[in-house]
Amino acid sequence: MKGYAMLGIGKTGWIEKTVPECGPLDALVKPLAISPCTSDVHTVWEGAIGERNDMILGHEAVGEVWKVGDMVRDFKPGDKVIIPAITPDWGKTEAQAGFSMHSGGMLAGWKFSNFKDGVFAEYFHVNEADANLALLPDGVDVASAVMLSDMVPTGFHGAELANVQYGESVCVIGIGPVGLMAVAGSALRGAGELLAVGSRPNCIEAAKQYGATGIINYRDGGIVEQVMERTGGKGVDKVIVAGGDNDTFIDAVKICRPGGIIGNVNYLGSGDYVRIPRVEWGCGMGHKTIAGGLMPGGRLRMERLVSLLKYGRLDTSLLLTHRFNGFEHAEEALMLMKDKPRDLIKPVVVI
Amino acid sequence: MKGYAMLGIGKTGWIEKTVPECGPLDALVKPLAISPCTSDVHTVWEGAIGERNDMILGHEAVGEVWKVGDMVRDFKPGDKVIIPAITPDWGKTEAQAGFSMHSGGMLAGWKFSNFKDGVFAEYFHVNEADANLALLPDGVDVASAVMLSDMVPTGFHGAELANVQYGESVCVIGIGPVGLMAVAGSALRGAGELLAVGSRPNCIEAAKQYGATGIINYRDGGIVEQVMERTGGKGVDKVIVAGGDNDTFIDAVKICRPGGIIGNVNYLGSGDYVRIPRVEWGCGMGHKTIAGGLMPGGRLRMERLVSLLKYGRLDTSLLLTHRFNGFEHAEEALMLMKDKPRDLIKPVVVI
Amino acid sequence: MKGYAMLGIGKTGWIEKTVPECGPLDALVKPLAISPCTSDVHTVWEGAIGERNDMILGHEAVGEVWKVGDMVRDFKPGDKVIIPAITPDWGKTEAQAGFSMHSGGMLAGWKFSNFKDGVFAEYFHVNEADANLALLPDGVDVASAVMLSDMVPTGFHGAELANVQYGESVCVIGIGPVGLMAVAGSALRGAGELLAVGSRPNCIEAAKQYGATGIINYRDGGIVEQVMERTGGKGVDKVIVAGGDNDTFIDAVKICRPGGIIGNVNYLGSGDYVRIPRVEWGCGMGHKTIAGGLMPGGRLRMERLVSLLKYGRLDTSLLLTHRFNGFEHAEEALMLMKDKPRDLIKPVVVI
Amino acid sequence: MKGYAMLGIGKTGWIEKTVPECGPLDALVKPLAISPCTSDVHTVWEGAIGERNDMILGHEAVGEVWKVGDMVRDFKPGDKVIIPAITPDWGKTEAQAGFSMHSGGMLAGWKFSNFKDGVFAEYFHVNEADANLALLPDGVDVASAVMLSDMVPTGFHGAELANVQYGESVCVIGIGPVGLMAVAGSALRGAGELLAVGSRPNCIEAAKQYGATGIINYRDGGIVEQVMERTGGKGVDKVIVAGGDNDTFIDAVKICRPGGIIGNVNYLGSGDYVRIPRVEWGCGMGHKTIAGGLMPGGRLRMERLVSLLKYGRLDTSLLLTHRFNGFEHAEEALMLMKDKPRDLIKPVVVI
Repeated sequence: MKGYAMLGIGKTGWIEKTVPECGPLDALVKPLAISPCTSDVHTVWEGAIGERNDMILGHEAVGEVWKVGDMVRDFKPGDKVIIPAITPDWGKTEAQAGFSMHSGGMLAGWKFSNFKDGVFAEYFHVNEADANLALLPDGVDVASAVMLSDMVPTGFHGAELANVQYGESVCVIGIGPVGLMAVAGSALRGAGELLAVGSRPNCIEAAKQYGATGIINYRDGGIVEQVMERTGGKGVDKVIVAGGDNDTFIDAVKICRPGGIIGNVNYLGSGDYVRIPRVEWGCGMGHKTIAGGLMPGGRLRMERLVSLLKYGRLDTSLLLTHRFNGFEHAEEALMLMKDKPRDLIKPVVVI
Repeated sequence: MKGYAMLGIGKTGWIEKTVPECGPLDALVKPLAISPCTSDVHTVWEGAIGERNDMILGHEAVGEVWKVGDMVRDFKPGDKVIIPAITPDWGKTEAQAGFSMHSGGMLAGWKFSNFKDGVFAEYFHVNEADANLALLPDGVDVASAVMLSDMVPTGFHGAELANVQYGESVCVIGIGPVGLMAVAGSALRGAGELLAVGSRPNCIEAAKQYGATGIINYRDGGIVEQVMERTGGKGVDKVIVAGGDNDTFIDAVKICRPGGIIGNVNYLGSGDYVRIPRVEWGCGMGHKTIAGGLMPGGRLRMERLVSLLKYGRLDTSLLLTHRFNGFEHAEEALMLMKDKPRDLIKPVVVI
Repeated sequence: MKGYAMLGIGKTGWIEKTVPECGPLDALVKPLAISPCTSDVHTVWEGAIGERNDMILGHEAVGEVWKVGDMVRDFKPGDKVIIPAITPDWGKTEAQAGFSMHSGGMLAGWKFSNFKDGVFAEYFHVNEADANLALLPDGVDVASAVMLSDMVPTGFHGAELANVQYGESVCVIGIGPVGLMAVAGSALRGAGELLAVGSRPNCIEAAKQYGATGIINYRDGGIVEQVMERTGGKGVDKVIVAGGDNDTFIDAVKICRPGGIIGNVNYLGSGDYVRIPRVEWGCGMGHKTIAGGLMPGGRLRMERLVSLLKYGRLDTSLLLTHRFNGFEHAEEALMLMKDKPRDLIKPVVVI
Repeated sequence: MKGYAMLGIGKTGWIEKTVPECGPLDALVKPLAISPCTSDVHTVWEGAIGERNDMILGHEAVGEVWKVGDMVRDFKPGDKVIIPAITPDWGKTEAQAGFSMHSGGMLAGWKFSNFKDGVFAEYFHVNEADANLALLPDGVDVASAVMLSDMVPTGFHGAELANVQYGESVCVIGIGPVGLMAVAGSALRGAGELLAVGSRPNCIEAAKQYGATGIINYRDGGIVEQVMERTGGKGVDKVIVAGGDNDTFIDAVKICRPGGIIGNVNYLGSGDYVRIPRVEWGCGMGHKTIAGGLMPGGRLRMERLVSLLKYGRLDTSLLLTHRFNGFEHAEEALMLMKDKPRDLIKPVVVI
């Protein structure tokens, strides 16, 4: 079968591989729509997870079940399904403790394009199919649904980590696709004032449509100064970090009120340390909780999130600035993600 | 001063009273908009809280501060303020434990038209003014804002008690004004499928606008049967009880899935017992948690909720089917609430 | 193989059955110590779960792994293991939602002596062995450890449901073995005043050793009156129901303060309704949360609980009033549980 | 009146001041037992909170009420009371949000020897007396009880922040008096394996008595290496930081498992940044939550904690290595705290 792969750090290309084995609990799925992720870019061109050779890329997909193992009961060939980027081993003790994304070890629920082949392939393998696939409801567009693999659950997890409550003020740092979903997710948990930090015009426009009540453009001055000015010097109740670097993280702590939470869903890819500004953190006494974590995946998560599309609570199509038809465009889509033209939010390839 | 009062069980009328004393922490407020509540009806005509004589009615108001005590720092005469129905004594141990509505004893945070004069008066008294008043932001309509005293925080508390999460299925039983706010509050916490139980056409219409995805009309069959049919026999993740009687409560438990929550914000006014159906409750083993409680009040609650109006997250004006101008219409508004004409959701009196 | 079984409602006896099949994820285990449970008594003599024919009884065991399926990685024949009464299907959506005991349906995590053969057998079957077995640490007595299958996790779950916090006052109703573990579990979560309701002298003695600070003997007067007298009319912060009937449940609600929780781990076996006293429940507004649920099982739970034995935090041996040696005593032990002699807390059979 | 004061950074001495005013909600209290705190040392000799002139020191006391304001209802002259180090303004919005220790601003619940005179005085002032004092029960020793002002609630708050659950493994870093109370608090929330990091022999001995199951002496090697070795390379479920510096904090993150919590109750007094090791924090994705906060104070907290002394759940007397009789020994006690002789845990002055 054909797949678009990372050949080594800095190199990608189409390769041929044998179709994966399908264990008794597993499924093989053919993609119907796929989307490249900034993580794929980090993986290939920044070597974020180390060397990988001939590893098929991609972890965002909607597909059709092609084959299932003997012990799979709830899915059959032909079913249209959403596949989460995170496919836990549900029996592991970490999953029993409520952290399925770390089942088997930190981040080990992330398998696609990390330590097994990803979804930019004619066929891809899904572990524990009954527990990790979700049916795509009739009437939900595949391109919109592919945003449920990673963008929606990651962005929404920011709002979950921050535990946004009715009427709280929230600042979302970063308004790429994950940040935009953090904005949408904050509005959908009842945030009041909702500030979004970013600068690209189409992202700003989307942020407003997703519920941002104010935009902090870091080109107009410091984030801290601008947020403090808008909040009477008090800062916001909750901060969601969905972009920026280790310096931005410092600002995130500064703009958070005592009793608040900084929820991080940004992959912090460089530097030895993430830094907390000591004084503004109350010298360790300020109850500014710092929580960061990988998105929860699995079947139930996908079922719940797709119901938001089905019932019109969320419209992910605003993210899809670039659409391609045909598997062969996987490369082009990935390169877009790499080059980040100014009008890009997220590309999708419908197959 | 003049006030519209409960003279005794079953009897109401205009009375004259002296203006209340203003203690050092307190404020006296003149109403700008008031609204009668079903609780006022229960209090007067059903004797729900026992005999009361010449007690001024009403606990929903927006007003203007007229006088403040010596120790009040954050408010001054002339400030336009929202007054919550529940005005806790914040220093009490119950408030320290997180249950300010029960400060000083069960339900003791409910003072207006319960054990002190209410807001249907030329002037009314607010305890701990700095902690219990909130400024009305410019541009927020007083009639819309008066829904923040009780309808919004009570309905939203249903969704809080039920701890609604992204994509969960929710059933709200009862779509009077509180139930409608429970619908809106569920949608605003990210509910997926959202069933609303009711029968009156204008309430059904409002429920849909507030986010209901399906209507269960109990005139068309049993609630349990209809909910089970729509949910593939599984029931819903969460149930909010905002209406009905002790028999309806039984249905609420039946339609809730194991691991779910029944959040009650309905004042259950009669009968010795509220009943849990034993078998469907898993014989006590089913993890169907039953939580019921009075709305949280106080300043912060009001500040947060009014931000939802200010930023356009919530439009309470759909509730306001009947508007009056002039304090003298308080009686007429209350009688509407008593008689519940078919087209009524909620009356408001702007002064 | 031989097993001690329910032949039908009201009838038990030794039977011969074929050794169970071992699926790829499963294990077969030989018991080293077993204990009968009051549930077994309800199952057989009260028909609590309906008719069952030739179903081997028992769900409390420590054993030795005899055989494992192909896909089992963490256990091998000869390993000494603790087997929880509840062995979930971890991939089910209910487990993903945090309620593994209801995986596949309400209470469906309870398999042994419910809808498959139990542990009073020469060999018994454990589903998802890697996820449901836990190693017995060296130096932990098998008879003490068998209390971890059900008594400890059920009693402790009462304290978890009640969310006992430092210095809270707690009342545990019922001081059979589960109630005693609820007392121990409350003390071990930092309860302050800890009242235990019971009457049998050896249970009272054990309750005191497990941390009860006062005993409420219902033979000396009403539970409500006695608890109110001891608490200055305020009631307790938290109530754990581990015994009694539907009438006792009414008392549980009455003695709970507003803002409190009634945590039920008592199997309520009869009557159509469990009743909540309406007025004392604040007419639905009192924030007296009612939570009831089956114990969490699985591997992690067992690993964590056994660490409490290993490190001397908990001594379950006080429960073991009657010890037998030899599998053939399973019947005698069960009959003891049925007849409940005055000096019985819990029997155990070491094999 | 006489008081022992910080005259300026680096200077202390006895001074004369006028007795404080007693507002309508306040009380004036005469100390019965006091204890100096490491914070007093930081305040005076490290200038941790900036310059202060003639500010009376001390925030740990048990005392006798001498005078109360007009509006105080629950306390009267002669009552023996416990005074928490943190005395919130309960009506402030931060307190309404559940963070009373930050009422009025970050850390603003900490008033004594911070921005008002402390308790090393003949009389000291307590704001909101009804909400911030707790009666000392008969039979509880004043010297033991003075540990409830700060040591117990701070150490226990570490276990609360870390949300210790039954059988979890916990590492407490630092076994001064706060760390020892974090050890005791972890055991009292049901920790299983409980590692304590420290080196002083009498502290190690006390840690064992308070429930530590293992000691990590940092003189014997790196904390990370030792903890990893004892936990099979997995780290612990929860970490409580009660000592050390910014470098130790890095270790705290490293030894925490994914899904764990680092609960900080250590005042981090120097450096621009507290640092999180990026890779071991899962690049922001590891669900290692970092929570740090000032102890909760107020009346209910004191009432609940003193019940642990009353019912024998906690014995604080192990902390009291040095006892003095007579107010005049306040200076000597403070100097002990400054000089930290090897056999010191905590001094107390009984008056």
